[in-house]
Amino acid sequence: MKVRGEFFPKAGPMIQEKNRALVTDLYELTMAACYFDNDMFEEATFSLFVRNYPPARRYFVAAGLEDVLQYLVELRFEQEDLDYLESTELFKPTFLSYLEKFRFSGDVDALPEGRLFFAQEPILEVTAPIIEAQIVETFIINAVNLQAMIATKASRCVQVAGTRKLVDFSLRRTQGVDAGLKVARASFIGGFAGTSNVLAGKTYGLPVFGTMAHSFISSFEQEIDAFRAFAETFPQNTVLLVDTYETVAGTKKAVKVGKEMAKKGYRLKGVRLDSGDIADLSKEVRLILKESGLQDAIIFASGAFDEHKIQEVIERGAEIDSFGVGTKMGVSADAPYLDMAYKLVSYGGQPVLKLSPKKLSLPLAKQVFRLLTEQEKMEKDIIGLRDDRIQAGEPLLGKVMSHGRIIASLPALEEIKAVCHDEFLRLDDKYKTIGGEAEYFPVELSPRLERLREAVITEVERKELSGD
Amino acid sequence: MKVRGEFFPKAGPMIQEKNRALVTDLYELTMAACYFDNDMFEEATFSLFVRNYPPARRYFVAAGLEDVLQYLVELRFEQEDLDYLESTELFKPTFLSYLEKFRFSGDVDALPEGRLFFAQEPILEVTAPIIEAQIVETFIINAVNLQAMIATKASRCVQVAGTRKLVDFSLRRTQGVDAGLKVARASFIGGFAGTSNVLAGKTYGLPVFGTMAHSFISSFEQEIDAFRAFAETFPQNTVLLVDTYETVAGTKKAVKVGKEMAKKGYRLKGVRLDSGDIADLSKEVRLILKESGLQDAIIFASGAFDEHKIQEVIERGAEIDSFGVGTKMGVSADAPYLDMAYKLVSYGGQPVLKLSPKKLSLPLAKQVFRLLTEQEKMEKDIIGLRDDRIQAGEPLLGKVMSHGRIIASLPALEEIKAVCHDEFLRLDDKYKTIGGEAEYFPVELSPRLERLREAVITEVERKELSGD
Repeated sequence: MKVRGEFFPKAGPMIQEKNRALVTDLYELTMAACYFDNDMFEEATFSLFVRNYPPARRYFVAAGLEDVLQYLVELRFEQEDLDYLESTELFKPTFLSYLEKFRFSGDVDALPEGRLFFAQEPILEVTAPIIEAQIVETFIINAVNLQAMIATKASRCVQVAGTRKLVDFSLRRTQGVDAGLKVARASFIGGFAGTSNVLAGKTYGLPVFGTMAHSFISSFEQEIDAFRAFAETFPQNTVLLVDTYETVAGTKKAVKVGKEMAKKGYRLKGVRLDSGDIADLSKEVRLILKESGLQDAIIFASGAFDEHKIQEVIERGAEIDSFGVGTKMGVSADAPYLDMAYKLVSYGGQPVLKLSPKKLSLPLAKQVFRLLTEQEKMEKDIIGLRDDRIQAGEPLLGKVMSHGRIIASLPALEEIKAVCHDEFLRLDDKYKTIGGEAEYFPVELSPRLERLREAVITEVERKELSGD
Repeated sequence: MKVRGEFFPKAGPMIQEKNRALVTDLYELTMAACYFDNDMFEEATFSLFVRNYPPARRYFVAAGLEDVLQYLVELRFEQEDLDYLESTELFKPTFLSYLEKFRFSGDVDALPEGRLFFAQEPILEVTAPIIEAQIVETFIINAVNLQAMIATKASRCVQVAGTRKLVDFSLRRTQGVDAGLKVARASFIGGFAGTSNVLAGKTYGLPVFGTMAHSFISSFEQEIDAFRAFAETFPQNTVLLVDTYETVAGTKKAVKVGKEMAKKGYRLKGVRLDSGDIADLSKEVRLILKESGLQDAIIFASGAFDEHKIQEVIERGAEIDSFGVGTKMGVSADAPYLDMAYKLVSYGGQPVLKLSPKKLSLPLAKQVFRLLTEQEKMEKDIIGLRDDRIQAGEPLLGKVMSHGRIIASLPALEEIKAVCHDEFLRLDDKYKTIGGEAEYFPVELSPRLERLREAVITEVERKELSGD
């Protein structure tokens, strides 16, 4: 089934953005300046993970890695960036000269995009001279936080929609233009069919969808004039918005135009409902379409949909083939951020951690091992040290960047989407409830990691809390 | 009081972005193609407004206009955009040729940034040939929705913080990089002192703040070594993060370093708390600082702050001079979108509207008039027709763009911030409760607008709903 203006062009070039070196918190640079003053150029490892589950979530979809790698490869301080930093009077000329030559030369181990992960699990680890690994913190969190959050939200919508097609309609209310682009990409990974976002279509080669708004209808003398005009311009792609004045009356006019199209050898592709009691209206509209011999016309619905509203209308027997899913998915309205952190876990080969009664801090570079049941379902994950060996556990993090160069092939978006779909099927339903609270997927620590963690805590307490 | 790495450089150039013509929903372009096919080049007016209040809000702060105007001035379809559109096989060559020469040639009437507005009130109206006014819809909503939402959220934080300084710390979890930039700008309008976002500092000339993270502390052999190193590199800007291992122990080490600094003629600027029971800890830390003769050192707090948590710790007597306010403000977590719409209100001089039982639709170009009490407080607003005259009412919308050229001088961010501050004081407290639900500010329709609306509804119902 195809709806709206759909097509699959080849992927365009990725977006080039200037000034990304300054997409950072000032403290990354003040810390860097101080490391520089103290000749601290030894290797550090930082670990990216989500601390806790937001309400109703018990899994996350990995997304955003491609953006991170592109950023790391391109990262440069331009002359205007250096001029600006100099104008702050915070930094010494020697440090600014260092930044002028700055390149990211480190390694990245990461979970592939599209795979599922769980709270506390490292999904990306950066190992590099500490200044390099520190400066990239802000961008890395920003990129992965947004896309993982949206891919997760989108996968929830797809879960309840079943075989019905979902289209990202969120651009107008995403939090900025960059978010609009990333939401289109991440929701596609989560299982959406495409987006209304034209730039995302161009940038990522995503299918784009769209026909008309209410303004189009009301700019014509009468609704049926608008329908006829659209059918004339887009005879292959006519989905008529029928609720500008009243849905049933609008549908009857759409039927009239559909019959006119049929006489010319074309076909009314469908109608769109955007307001009112969509479940009830869709049944009424389906009946009208069927009785008029337009049983092939699809019913497209939009208007404040998210996983909950999609589930509700489907349970009420709505006759909807496809949904436009907008704002609530595009900002992940019920969970508009993840509690994602990027923590130093080793410096100069030594394990480090922050002491915190409430937050689990795991020292040294790590690996996540995934164990499956005999039925090939996900059984549990074990977080271990990077060089742990776990019987029958699949190591999830792979090296994707070495010495600042991308060494893994970046999969096409369609492949990433397929990975997500496949992983989702391997996760038991009890971990993916839509309403209410699902169960927690079991995540354990390897014995070596557990012992190391305790030893480091003891050592830190001895050094830092023993009086004076 | 100054904290952290603060400075006020001159504003840099605004960001140049490519491809903004494609930052649009596909349907804007399919509608445009159909208008084009039907020789529909008459003038249309579209009206931008927020339909409803999100939870706990009863006013909004206008922000985002500068972005909109810059976009309209720069709007072009580049060759690569046209190539992409051609590749979709949706558009005819004549229409693509039209887009090649496309310039925005219309007028914009708008509420100045920083002023307060209310639900249903038009805050920006675009009058232009319909294709032009239609194509810009998506970007305009996106830009104003984000910044108005954040400026509003920020003003709520400022309301409870009183004279305490607030700094935007949200960049790592804003929804993308563009949002990070716009959040820094909008939160400054709402009353924040500055941001941690270096690119925002460069772009908008905002004060930037930041010193160190936990990773900095734990990369040194001992906490006190990290403190000493930082004080050595930034003797004018030493705010020490004291909670990496344990806040009281950390504070005592900070005091030690503060005394060492004093011997060299420097001063410990302050300490930062980022975890634990911040209200209680801050009192304990204040006592330690005072008893050590460091009564000038400020206490900076961060960690999941929003208006509610700021209010709570202040009510509990927290000794905090300044807050870093991050994620929850940066994504407006409790209200991550506004119900903002851009509706066609006239075409070819005729009033139009969408019929909807639940949504108020107001035909023709409009004006908003603000009436003050004798005490210069805001009494009520009246939405009227553009050419209404309301006794003693200040017309709020002013013409800022004529024939595609910006005709108003764009105020500096400091001025916009002052406007917001001033308006906020004129709004009675009963409309700005933080917890619970505040009262609704009175917004009326002018008699002429009310009569017109009824007449247009009657006419539309006659034309569209009278059966056929």
